[in-house]
Amino acid sequence: MRTIYWDKSTEQVKTIDQRALPGRVEWITLKTGEEVAAAIQNMIIRGAPAIGVAGAYGMVLAAYQCKVMTSTMIVAKVLETGKIIQAARPTAVNLKWAIDRMGKVVLSNTSSTKELHNLLLAEAEKIAEEDIQTNLKIAKHGIEIIEDGDVIIHHCNTGSLATVEGGTALGVIKEAWKQGKRLKVLVDETRPLFQGSRLTAWELQQEGIPYEIITDSAAGFFLERKLATKVMFGADRVAANGDVANKIGSYMLALAAHANQIPVYSVFPYTSVDASCGMGSDIEIEFRAASELLDVKVNGNDIAPEGAKAINPAFDITPNHLITAWITDEGIIYPPFKMSDRINLGEE
Amino acid sequence: MRTIYWDKSTEQVKTIDQRALPGRVEWITLKTGEEVAAAIQNMIIRGAPAIGVAGAYGMVLAAYQCKVMTSTMIVAKVLETGKIIQAARPTAVNLKWAIDRMGKVVLSNTSSTKELHNLLLAEAEKIAEEDIQTNLKIAKHGIEIIEDGDVIIHHCNTGSLATVEGGTALGVIKEAWKQGKRLKVLVDETRPLFQGSRLTAWELQQEGIPYEIITDSAAGFFLERKLATKVMFGADRVAANGDVANKIGSYMLALAAHANQIPVYSVFPYTSVDASCGMGSDIEIEFRAASELLDVKVNGNDIAPEGAKAINPAFDITPNHLITAWITDEGIIYPPFKMSDRINLGEE
Repeated sequence: MRTIYWDKSTEQVKTIDQRALPGRVEWITLKTGEEVAAAIQNMIIRGAPAIGVAGAYGMVLAAYQCKVMTSTMIVAKVLETGKIIQAARPTAVNLKWAIDRMGKVVLSNTSSTKELHNLLLAEAEKIAEEDIQTNLKIAKHGIEIIEDGDVIIHHCNTGSLATVEGGTALGVIKEAWKQGKRLKVLVDETRPLFQGSRLTAWELQQEGIPYEIITDSAAGFFLERKLATKVMFGADRVAANGDVANKIGSYMLALAAHANQIPVYSVFPYTSVDASCGMGSDIEIEFRAASELLDVKVNGNDIAPEGAKAINPAFDITPNHLITAWITDEGIIYPPFKMSDRINLGEE
Repeated sequence: MRTIYWDKSTEQVKTIDQRALPGRVEWITLKTGEEVAAAIQNMIIRGAPAIGVAGAYGMVLAAYQCKVMTSTMIVAKVLETGKIIQAARPTAVNLKWAIDRMGKVVLSNTSSTKELHNLLLAEAEKIAEEDIQTNLKIAKHGIEIIEDGDVIIHHCNTGSLATVEGGTALGVIKEAWKQGKRLKVLVDETRPLFQGSRLTAWELQQEGIPYEIITDSAAGFFLERKLATKVMFGADRVAANGDVANKIGSYMLALAAHANQIPVYSVFPYTSVDASCGMGSDIEIEFRAASELLDVKVNGNDIAPEGAKAINPAFDITPNHLITAWITDEGIIYPPFKMSDRINLGEE
């Protein structure tokens, strides 16, 4: 299932509105770079690899918006749009990475508007296609660690909805299932926006993979009783020392797994490693609106009193010593996550 | 605020329906022992001390239902009702403790129906009054550990709604605030039924105590950044070795606090210690309906696909080594939580 693409006939971007899931599969059209920025900000599109690709397409849209401008004006507009999109969400490095890559293309000294359009679209399509191929590689490497009978606690959504197609951690799980490994997923719901219960459970249900939803806070119970054998989640940004920034709750989950000798795998495209961040504390953590947490009803009742205050960090940092291994398109990488050991994996 | 009482004029039990909070304060009437059992099962009444008192009143109701019976029949009916009520929720020991205590009264060899009614009602009123006094003692001891400027992560609800009046952990916090200590509470929402955001935030708002709601999975973030200085929660049953069974999520919260050298206090009436449980793993953990977790809407959408499966343990065990101290009506008790050290506290 491809969840975001460039529609050639309309020269627009089509993507699934993730807010409407699991109730409805709604495709929406994004017509401008600003609409892409808003879609990323509002979580219509989410997941580190997916927002990277969306950002690239957003810059293509910015260029296409400028049909009557000079190429100098287009360059300025595209770069400016890139900045707006990047500001939509600060934590995932893939967004910055994709926008930087598109920025290099836009500065490629072409004077033809048509050619600039083509170059930008080709680069965005390449980023999207690379994401699909990267996920296939991640799955190929990742299935090595999946054992028959595994019960995997999975945090947030790392499937087709978090990427262009296939997914990272969920891609590994799906591939293992396809190859006949018996497994079950304990889907933690992932507050505040329930990306686990809304999105991951939906993807697993479509594949017929056995799963049960748990609250985020119940993971420790299952880990302590050895009712789970592995923990898997994605990454929004990985520091040079191996610390992983990921959806809020990853840290407590990893702590609980570690305390009970259950392995923890962070699964991501190698491009999520940000060598400019020495350690996790260098990574900016996004705080999102309190309403995201509070606009929930249980049995028809509000979950908090009128006027309630809330504070809503969207990510946390799992320190490297809690991570058993990275699962990446470049292979499975074990601690110590030293830069020098990784040069042969293509990092400078 | 007293949240449960015996209404003399109607000879019935009045209590707040906790399911309707924070939207509405609805008092409901319980007329029979069976209605009390159902109210406990359905979480109309919850909180270990509160359900103990409710159970005692339920046995009084059972006796009052039997106005035309012989006292032998009343004894049988009351004991049978006690069993039904106790089966409503297996984990909190206070329920068993209160029902055993009422059971002794019912077997007190009185042959007069009227006298049996009076004895049972007197005992239930005594249990309720003792709970209020116990909470005052807990607060008196507990405020010793509260420091000016504390930011306390609090799990579930341990206030007036969880007891007859006053509360355990929340009672300590309220008393410290009354005495002028500046503090803030990070209220974790406490999935699945949001007792933190629905009930604790409501109680704090009424007292004017500063608070912010966080998701359960965000606690680790605040602890790691030293944005919280203490963790406090109640207890549903405490094993002889000091392990604490409490609302699901307590374990992961304590792990995250411990990993960041933040103290963890479990606050409870000393009657929550069950000497017959050697360790936490001896305590039965209640599993509740999947619907409790799934019947939630975010932005008007279901949080899980139709037909989704979920598994919902209601409690977990926090091992003794993660608990900095017990705060009880008998005083603050530090590790090792050895039985022999506690004999002078009234335990045999």
